[in-house]
Amino acid sequence: MNQNKVSVFRKEHFNAAHRLNNPLLSVEENKAVFGKCNNNNFHGHNYELIVKVSGFVDPVTGYVVDMKLLSDIIKGEIIEKFDHKNLNLDVFEFKEINPTAENIAMVIYNMLKEKIDTQYEIKIMLHETARNYVEYPA
Amino acid sequence: MNQNKVSVFRKEHFNAAHRLNNPLLSVEENKAVFGKCNNNNFHGHNYELIVKVSGFVDPVTGYVVDMKLLSDIIKGEIIEKFDHKNLNLDVFEFKEINPTAENIAMVIYNMLKEKIDTQYEIKIMLHETARNYVEYPA
Amino acid sequence: MNQNKVSVFRKEHFNAAHRLNNPLLSVEENKAVFGKCNNNNFHGHNYELIVKVSGFVDPVTGYVVDMKLLSDIIKGEIIEKFDHKNLNLDVFEFKEINPTAENIAMVIYNMLKEKIDTQYEIKIMLHETARNYVEYPA
Amino acid sequence: MNQNKVSVFRKEHFNAAHRLNNPLLSVEENKAVFGKCNNNNFHGHNYELIVKVSGFVDPVTGYVVDMKLLSDIIKGEIIEKFDHKNLNLDVFEFKEINPTAENIAMVIYNMLKEKIDTQYEIKIMLHETARNYVEYPA
Amino acid sequence: MNQNKVSVFRKEHFNAAHRLNNPLLSVEENKAVFGKCNNNNFHGHNYELIVKVSGFVDPVTGYVVDMKLLSDIIKGEIIEKFDHKNLNLDVFEFKEINPTAENIAMVIYNMLKEKIDTQYEIKIMLHETARNYVEYPA
Amino acid sequence: MNQNKVSVFRKEHFNAAHRLNNPLLSVEENKAVFGKCNNNNFHGHNYELIVKVSGFVDPVTGYVVDMKLLSDIIKGEIIEKFDHKNLNLDVFEFKEINPTAENIAMVIYNMLKEKIDTQYEIKIMLHETARNYVEYPA
Repeated sequence: MNQNKVSVFRKEHFNAAHRLNNPLLSVEENKAVFGKCNNNNFHGHNYELIVKVSGFVDPVTGYVVDMKLLSDIIKGEIIEKFDHKNLNLDVFEFKEINPTAENIAMVIYNMLKEKIDTQYEIKIMLHETARNYVEYPA
Repeated sequence: MNQNKVSVFRKEHFNAAHRLNNPLLSVEENKAVFGKCNNNNFHGHNYELIVKVSGFVDPVTGYVVDMKLLSDIIKGEIIEKFDHKNLNLDVFEFKEINPTAENIAMVIYNMLKEKIDTQYEIKIMLHETARNYVEYPA
Repeated sequence: MNQNKVSVFRKEHFNAAHRLNNPLLSVEENKAVFGKCNNNNFHGHNYELIVKVSGFVDPVTGYVVDMKLLSDIIKGEIIEKFDHKNLNLDVFEFKEINPTAENIAMVIYNMLKEKIDTQYEIKIMLHETARNYVEYPA
Repeated sequence: MNQNKVSVFRKEHFNAAHRLNNPLLSVEENKAVFGKCNNNNFHGHNYELIVKVSGFVDPVTGYVVDMKLLSDIIKGEIIEKFDHKNLNLDVFEFKEINPTAENIAMVIYNMLKEKIDTQYEIKIMLHETARNYVEYPA
Repeated sequence: MNQNKVSVFRKEHFNAAHRLNNPLLSVEENKAVFGKCNNNNFHGHNYELIVKVSGFVDPVTGYVVDMKLLSDIIKGEIIEKFDHKNLNLDVFEFKEINPTAENIAMVIYNMLKEKIDTQYEIKIMLHETARNYVEYPA
Repeated sequence: MNQNKVSVFRKEHFNAAHRLNNPLLSVEENKAVFGKCNNNNFHGHNYELIVKVSGFVDPVTGYVVDMKLLSDIIKGEIIEKFDHKNLNLDVFEFKEINPTAENIAMVIYNMLKEKIDTQYEIKIMLHETARNYVEYPA
């Protein structure tokens, strides 16, 4: 059949606490910029994570990638580290990065990029609430 | 028309951090009972809250209750207090109550019951994740 | 197997314009009671209608009712009359009934009740927006 | 707090093939009764299964039941047996029962009833398509 | 971190009546082209509007744009003008434009484009029903 | 207004049985590659199919394409052939193609491409489960 690429998407989720804060700003500036997302004691979300992988279909399997393997990579690299955690306090990658949805998506992209064969292009979609989500790269 | 009651449902949401822990149990027991929900630094959820109100239709308005007023009550009594908060640390009602979904629903029921006319029956549905939700009373 | 009743649910939808207004109230009173839902030139919704039918399973078919037949009844009695219509101006049943979600559900219940065998109990759920829905009888 | 019961709901899913057919009916009768659901070579669905468990909240845990344990029971008793299977050919319980949504829900109820403490009431909701679902007991 | 752009998406909604009609066509031609969407007295929808904004992440905030500000712009420019309105009769922009989903999306794009900094690319997704939606630009 | 293209999306669905298997591989290899999707007696899915059509808006209609006509084409070409069928046994196009989601999307693309005017670009999105979906072309 066709020689065009196909994209496959795998959805996983994690539940985490976080707080938006920039240590270079004053307490008042942080409150002004981040509003209630700056709450000292954190708040949290059910994050829906979708990983898009684009590549050619393997003629033997009919797969771009085995979704079971893709799911295992996402679970091993991301979900185990982020799920039921405090992103600011428990996750190494956010020690110096403010865990906005944009930054979480970029961090996940960089973590997965290392584990997925370079023949594939990947993209991250992250739903933070029912009304806010992000995509990286744009 | 009919003289039977109608139920109306209003959906609101809040994003909060929480941790499941019983101070009467040891650290090990809490870990055994609550697993990853016991994480010291909290985790969080997008809570979907549905309030069901049952009563007779007012012949003048065609409403059981004005959904705008119901929404305002839910926002004023619950969402303002719970949204973008840490349920364990920031919300008075959970100072001595473990914020399981069951207990959160019971607390919300009791808070709203006082603000809604006794001619109405109410019920609380609370979705904690896409796969877990609770209803009170059963 | 068991001798208990089973409920089956069929979801259909219709898109309609409507306006909330009580001709016994003044223009100002209607505006005060119904707010933006009173807009003179109407507004509209994608209504999601769920019909619940409860009864015993027929041992020959394994069905409470044939969902295809149930869908045909809902389409013939309700969807054909309500879909892509102005409820206030085009639908006979609302000539003298204010088309609130509560009243629409009661009207649908009464219309379907006549067409569905009396051995079955029925219930109507009507979603007017993603955040507001009603159930009749309660 | 209150002494009323709470209901908790756990959602799981399975993907299965099935065919509706009653061996006591002729080929023509089966075609007439079950239409395209009678297709000789089967068709299939993503079944969404929701198990509702009602009971009192345990004052030590704040749980009606541990959702992790409930999920494990549903997976062990139902999902392992039904998922990625042909209900008619691969699942013992449907050797002599026509796998309509109604019958599948009743079978699941009976299978889970034996594994869940009798202090709890349970109810099964089974979504067969986005527009058809059933509940047992009614 | 990376120097690639991120896209952020904000979902809002409005409920409106509309009617598809081209005054340059005859009554019969309009009926033929637009079918039941041409109904004289209008019909309506719950429109789900998603605004996509692509740009670089601000290193101070970790945001592409502040979602609160984006939401305020969408509400101020679009929702206040379209919600609970008749698009044909109440909304200036459709005085001479047929309010198909395609045209509504293009109108919204042009209205928002003027209010959002030119450093950002924007895209509009508009869901008219659960089965029909559009995206502009393609 | 603008001279840019608009994309319109139409969602349809079909319920089908399938089995993943490559006749060039041994029984053991098929089991190793496809796992439980290789089940001899098939399993099945509710497939959600979204067809994206991109083109210029017709100034007479305000449509890229008439969604009713697009829906009729999808139903006539795809749904009638795939719905309530066994993809491996009942659908000609999969006699020699393994019905992975990737391959089903490519087959649908090729079938629709012949029926849709070449002035339009099309894209196929196919949801196989709530967590797995594909897009073709990428």
